[in-house]
Amino acid sequence: MYMANAYDGSNLAALDPNTRALIERRDAVLGSSYRLFYRDPVVPVRGSGVHLYDADGREYLDVYNNVPAIGHSHPHVQRLVSEQLGVLNTHTRYLTEPVVAYSERLLALFPQELSKVVYTCTGSESVDLALRMARYRTGATGVICTRHAYHGTTAAAAEVSPSLGPNNLIGPNVVLVDAPDLLRDNRETAAADFASRVRLAVDELNVRGVGVAAMIVDSILSSDGVQSHPTDLLREAVDVIHEAGGLWIADEVQPGFGRLGVQWWGFARHGIAPDMVVLGKPMGNGVPVAAVVGTEDAMDSFGRDIRYFNTFGGNPVSIAAATAVLDVIEEESLLDSARRVGEHLDTGLRDIAARHRALGDVRGCGLFVAAEFVAEDGLTPDPAIAAFVVDELRNRRILISASGRHANVLKIRPPMTFGLSDADRFLTELDDILG
Amino acid sequence: MYMANAYDGSNLAALDPNTRALIERRDAVLGSSYRLFYRDPVVPVRGSGVHLYDADGREYLDVYNNVPAIGHSHPHVQRLVSEQLGVLNTHTRYLTEPVVAYSERLLALFPQELSKVVYTCTGSESVDLALRMARYRTGATGVICTRHAYHGTTAAAAEVSPSLGPNNLIGPNVVLVDAPDLLRDNRETAAADFASRVRLAVDELNVRGVGVAAMIVDSILSSDGVQSHPTDLLREAVDVIHEAGGLWIADEVQPGFGRLGVQWWGFARHGIAPDMVVLGKPMGNGVPVAAVVGTEDAMDSFGRDIRYFNTFGGNPVSIAAATAVLDVIEEESLLDSARRVGEHLDTGLRDIAARHRALGDVRGCGLFVAAEFVAEDGLTPDPAIAAFVVDELRNRRILISASGRHANVLKIRPPMTFGLSDADRFLTELDDILG
Repeated sequence: MYMANAYDGSNLAALDPNTRALIERRDAVLGSSYRLFYRDPVVPVRGSGVHLYDADGREYLDVYNNVPAIGHSHPHVQRLVSEQLGVLNTHTRYLTEPVVAYSERLLALFPQELSKVVYTCTGSESVDLALRMARYRTGATGVICTRHAYHGTTAAAAEVSPSLGPNNLIGPNVVLVDAPDLLRDNRETAAADFASRVRLAVDELNVRGVGVAAMIVDSILSSDGVQSHPTDLLREAVDVIHEAGGLWIADEVQPGFGRLGVQWWGFARHGIAPDMVVLGKPMGNGVPVAAVVGTEDAMDSFGRDIRYFNTFGGNPVSIAAATAVLDVIEEESLLDSARRVGEHLDTGLRDIAARHRALGDVRGCGLFVAAEFVAEDGLTPDPAIAAFVVDELRNRRILISASGRHANVLKIRPPMTFGLSDADRFLTELDDILG
Repeated sequence: MYMANAYDGSNLAALDPNTRALIERRDAVLGSSYRLFYRDPVVPVRGSGVHLYDADGREYLDVYNNVPAIGHSHPHVQRLVSEQLGVLNTHTRYLTEPVVAYSERLLALFPQELSKVVYTCTGSESVDLALRMARYRTGATGVICTRHAYHGTTAAAAEVSPSLGPNNLIGPNVVLVDAPDLLRDNRETAAADFASRVRLAVDELNVRGVGVAAMIVDSILSSDGVQSHPTDLLREAVDVIHEAGGLWIADEVQPGFGRLGVQWWGFARHGIAPDMVVLGKPMGNGVPVAAVVGTEDAMDSFGRDIRYFNTFGGNPVSIAAATAVLDVIEEESLLDSARRVGEHLDTGLRDIAARHRALGDVRGCGLFVAAEFVAEDGLTPDPAIAAFVVDELRNRRILISASGRHANVLKIRPPMTFGLSDADRFLTELDDILG
């Protein structure tokens, strides 16, 4: 996976001595799996709301982190988690009330047929479990995902995460389909064209003799460049999967929990009926808690025959964090705020696009906005401009990165407490950089 | 997986109305994957040290939970985690000090060649990652594990977890070997016999054409009935794996972090050199944090070519919990305590065994003690007595369960702060039940 904002180590000597020393200590113990963001890595020592701060008190505007959904270091998360840590933190084989109460509250945010929830600790574990359940339920093993998807890092989740790059092998049971590309596709036929590609993938899995267990799709196609419109984009593909006997798994790790500012979940915006929904990152504002929500039909046979126990999953401390997140999203009307600030961002970006040809497309929904950079022809992806913008923004202490198949799409995905003035600061700096 | 202390729902009507109501609410939202402990489920509302308490203030002695390694609701974990939640909680692509400082401290507890660490959130994720790394490093895909092993719940981890039962399919790349059985094997030849079985498994993987990527073994063979002696039990098998080009993965999720009272890690007690070590449960006293520690040779190529990023893994809040655990283990000399109390338990159990024939073997190390129940002949496993004892202990408010291939082995695995008087209470009640 090409990382538009990766630190590559080439300017180690130019960094300030404290940063350099910490990087060297870090390399000695963490090794080669780890990467850092930015040519000049950010060294935060404090976070608050939409801001991070370094040791010199410099303030960074966070336009990229969806994990602290309700803002960095939120006091309500701190309070509920801290209180619970002093009371009880056991697993779900003892009967405890918090996980039940939270589950009732969470499931009330879903369509009625999505009536069961199983807790894990990470989105990757949730994806892995949803795939296990789909394969058990259907007896098939084939899975379909999009060509630049990212769904996680367990062995099974990595098999459906082609965005991890060429060395990450895609399993023989997995078939990739091109995601819609809103800038280049015919928007009139995009949904039908996508469904046709899914149908070919179904045929391929049947030819291979593995059948269709599931298709898994991020409901806003984040890693494929944030393909947000029209809202019927996925509906025909869901029908194709269901006709083939497979399950539809909606990956809501990125779009979920109200970020899109319309409904709580990206799939709901499309009016589709997934069989399972995968939740992660923002669920506990950074405290590890994740889940699979699904229909009884999709999850019941696996549960009865195999069961699933996740030691930390659904423990009272994780549930306290998750409860705090729902409290704040509701009390601070963050869905409304995400919609309002998202519209402001969208308008501002379109205004910039009208003046700067490099900004070829603006799309998204709520606080999940994409700005796609292109060459003179208005179509050819231009990752170099995207990388330049990301780096320049970092120098102006605005944190963001680029995604999509060509890493030319600015992914604007701040904490949901991002306000109008934060949006204005971002827009002003972006405009200035492009000018 | 047979669960010696499972709640089976048959006596729902006999439970008190509050418990019954909570079970019904729970079943409605959590569904069939979830199980409860005990015919009469325990409903804890508070935990402290080695005790849990229900709403009526009844105190339960916890002899089974290794997650709260330093005791339930430990104030030092609460303090460090709470402070960190108010300061900063970001991922490892920003440069932060806590994860580096903790890594240096953790790696200092390992032999020098185990020089790198990668963080995950759960033991399952760690097992999954270690298997991915071993397969990438060796180019082989075959894995060997013991016949009643448990290593986790991701798809790849479940494939090496035959103890999950007959519906959990073991992968075509996995070969099972019988673990040593200390009560029935010839102890003189147990290590060589085990190595011979591993050699046959190597041959089988080579015949299948998949080669040997790794063998993964819990260093005290917990799920295979706690096979703790002699300490050279694993050494020859490690040599066989290394000769075959495979890696040895030591699963320390259960024995690790000083529980055995001798060294920090179960593998160190055996004097063996694993290529990777998997850490989990007790690492954060219930806050989700886990890791893979390994040699540069085992982990480097995967890291360079594929990388690994776990959003919550190694974040400052998880690291705060892990730091608190090391602080308390060191400050309260819990290794010494585990050894001392473990010896007391061992002596007491042997005394009971001398008077009660049903207790056929006592083994273990530190605060990981096994008491095996057998029939009149002194050899035939007797899971019925084990289940009876577990249930009777629960009625006396002592929490424990049984494990092993025949579920006839009492697994005594309390928080490491378990003291001599706690051990005495347990021994007295056990003696009384058997009498």
